[in-house]
Amino acid sequence: MHVDQLDAAQRAQALAQAESDYHALLAQGLSLDLTRGKPSAEQANLSNALDGILDGNYFAQDGTDVRNYGGIDGLPEAKALFAQVLQVPADEMLIGGNASLTLMYQVIDFALRFGFHKAWNTGDSTPKFLCPVPGYDRHFSICEYLGIEMVTLPMLDDGPDMDVAEALVQELDNVCGIWCVPRFSNPTGCVYSEATLARLAALPKLAKSDFLIMYDNAYAVHALTADAPALGNIREHAIAAGTLDNIVQFGSTSKITFAGAGVAFLSTSKSNLAAFKKYLGFQTIGPDKVNQLRHVAFFKDHSGLMAHMDRHADIMKPRFDAVLSTLEAQLGGTGMGTWISPEGGYFVSFETRPGLAKAVIQLASDAGIKLTPAGATFPYGNDPQDSNIRIAPSFPSIADVQATMDAFVVCVRLATLRSLAK
Amino acid sequence: MHVDQLDAAQRAQALAQAESDYHALLAQGLSLDLTRGKPSAEQANLSNALDGILDGNYFAQDGTDVRNYGGIDGLPEAKALFAQVLQVPADEMLIGGNASLTLMYQVIDFALRFGFHKAWNTGDSTPKFLCPVPGYDRHFSICEYLGIEMVTLPMLDDGPDMDVAEALVQELDNVCGIWCVPRFSNPTGCVYSEATLARLAALPKLAKSDFLIMYDNAYAVHALTADAPALGNIREHAIAAGTLDNIVQFGSTSKITFAGAGVAFLSTSKSNLAAFKKYLGFQTIGPDKVNQLRHVAFFKDHSGLMAHMDRHADIMKPRFDAVLSTLEAQLGGTGMGTWISPEGGYFVSFETRPGLAKAVIQLASDAGIKLTPAGATFPYGNDPQDSNIRIAPSFPSIADVQATMDAFVVCVRLATLRSLAK
Repeated sequence: MHVDQLDAAQRAQALAQAESDYHALLAQGLSLDLTRGKPSAEQANLSNALDGILDGNYFAQDGTDVRNYGGIDGLPEAKALFAQVLQVPADEMLIGGNASLTLMYQVIDFALRFGFHKAWNTGDSTPKFLCPVPGYDRHFSICEYLGIEMVTLPMLDDGPDMDVAEALVQELDNVCGIWCVPRFSNPTGCVYSEATLARLAALPKLAKSDFLIMYDNAYAVHALTADAPALGNIREHAIAAGTLDNIVQFGSTSKITFAGAGVAFLSTSKSNLAAFKKYLGFQTIGPDKVNQLRHVAFFKDHSGLMAHMDRHADIMKPRFDAVLSTLEAQLGGTGMGTWISPEGGYFVSFETRPGLAKAVIQLASDAGIKLTPAGATFPYGNDPQDSNIRIAPSFPSIADVQATMDAFVVCVRLATLRSLAK
Repeated sequence: MHVDQLDAAQRAQALAQAESDYHALLAQGLSLDLTRGKPSAEQANLSNALDGILDGNYFAQDGTDVRNYGGIDGLPEAKALFAQVLQVPADEMLIGGNASLTLMYQVIDFALRFGFHKAWNTGDSTPKFLCPVPGYDRHFSICEYLGIEMVTLPMLDDGPDMDVAEALVQELDNVCGIWCVPRFSNPTGCVYSEATLARLAALPKLAKSDFLIMYDNAYAVHALTADAPALGNIREHAIAAGTLDNIVQFGSTSKITFAGAGVAFLSTSKSNLAAFKKYLGFQTIGPDKVNQLRHVAFFKDHSGLMAHMDRHADIMKPRFDAVLSTLEAQLGGTGMGTWISPEGGYFVSFETRPGLAKAVIQLASDAGIKLTPAGATFPYGNDPQDSNIRIAPSFPSIADVQATMDAFVVCVRLATLRSLAK
């Protein structure tokens, strides 16, 4: 029954039950961790053949000796392979090292100090970035570290609230860009709609500054089922809007092969690529091409990569099912929280009633369950509603995910009912 | 005979001979390249076992799953292994990605903008760096790109001219550091003496700014013979001088295993490491630990690494012998140039008589022989004496090195004799 429909006696009884359930939870002496948005060892095992896959052949298709220096934008065959992940032409790709986070930091650093067209850091007005919330903490920490002011806007079920975004870029000075995770967004799991993509691609034309869409397509091929919602093609919208120079797309195999030893890549216009390669040339002679060649040899082609993702889904789906079925069974219809049911990605985003996220996380912590700190999904670690909790079910075993969720719903019930009893 | 001792008739005859030799050279239609300071395929072959060396064991000694995220300063066993290359304790090490150039860029970027102790980029006075010349062009290009003014000082046979260095740091404002390649210096091949190391380690105490010694020990274990001069331990001098916070040492396996897919590392004080790791944490979750583990599995220990370097020396020494024996046989005692005979590293540095480097390089180019562009070993590409030519014999075959040197000495003779005929 919905919590708002309980009478005083029912509420008291429900609270007593929750206190009792929580007391039982404490007695279990659990030690569980649902904070880590990283693949499990079982997933990594899928790619164990990477080491040794070259079988002594260290030469790219064009004859390049991948063991030696050079090739700042990566191997042609790696561009061809990963271009299909981002749905872009291979000649708009750059293949980097093991971390798309590094590429994102470098793009921001370059745009800020040197500029694809005009440096953001002109000194007139603090550079600002639009940050749909909840979002990815490492995006936000790049901005904070580099002195970019973050302006939040709501994340809807079909992507950022574009009404707000369009208003902000016209109202504020020096709004330089927006962070996006367009498919299975971190953490809400939403997929940007075609209409959102079209408005997003046109956003740079409304902005007063040299506006950059940081399009982190981290979960481009990370669906849980074959019929998960597809993502439209932002590049086609950008071409239509004349804004291809204002978009940089990112991806990596961190959650395809190895999280610490994969291959990262980006795509942007050819003129942006030329400018960015020049910047990169001062800090590296080139990426690890051996590892790029390993990835090409391992997947062979896009269908090989997609078949590999099916095996990831086989591992991930039961974990998501454990989260979502427990939320639905225990909290569905109670009004104690809301969530959407992602069909891919790495997270479930749970919204408590306002002001309760910290309390739930504290209750869970006291019961031996680590959840992502409250506020982590907001700029400056500040969730003004204190309501968002990010659930990351990939790393623990299915049994541990289930045990954690069983405990989590008790904490949500207790925090909610206690707050109503005040 | 020394060219200054030739009478007019002898000079005319020698010039005619040189013109004739050069004419014959042109007729050969050569196509040779001595510009590339990179290992040969034969050298890379020594490390082919790296791919597949793990044999399915992706776990570090402490149980870390190297396939997953984390460990921003690298694997403990990689620290232990490469600490011995730099002769430092393992707990003063950080193991990075595939490029020490990246680590150097990041250290400079960090020191400039945020500061190990105090940011260099204070706005009062342009940050300046001491650059012993000739030196490594990629060091210089980092400074140029990041707006650091370069101040040259002479490189002597036992390292930078410390009299000049000490005077400069006291005379000039905001001298923030010095570039060093202490063993088999790029390109002169000299090894810094113990006395130079002692004065270098004390230099930060004389400087007005937060002074950083960028100690790029790229050729730490790259001797051609067993009795090549050893390098002293800068860390011990720094401890004696109380300047451990003012030194960052760099190294990599780029010229040990694979130039594009090795492991880079740095060493500095623990407090510097803590500050630098925080900076790195905004741009990466960690380096490629799989590749680090491969390197540890491949070498096993320091003696394994040193035995591997002996096999490199077997390949490199005949190439250096071809360069040095040809210079000695054809130009020794002629006064047409000077060089030192490196006992390790990757380069021979040839000094023409003043004003002739460009002419020699042009003559060589016209004969189909690519040499490193004149000025490349100087800040801003400007060799004020126009005399330094960097010879890089590692990449071509021995026969090609010999053919190139045979041609090179003809070009030197011709340029010198032509200049004297004016």
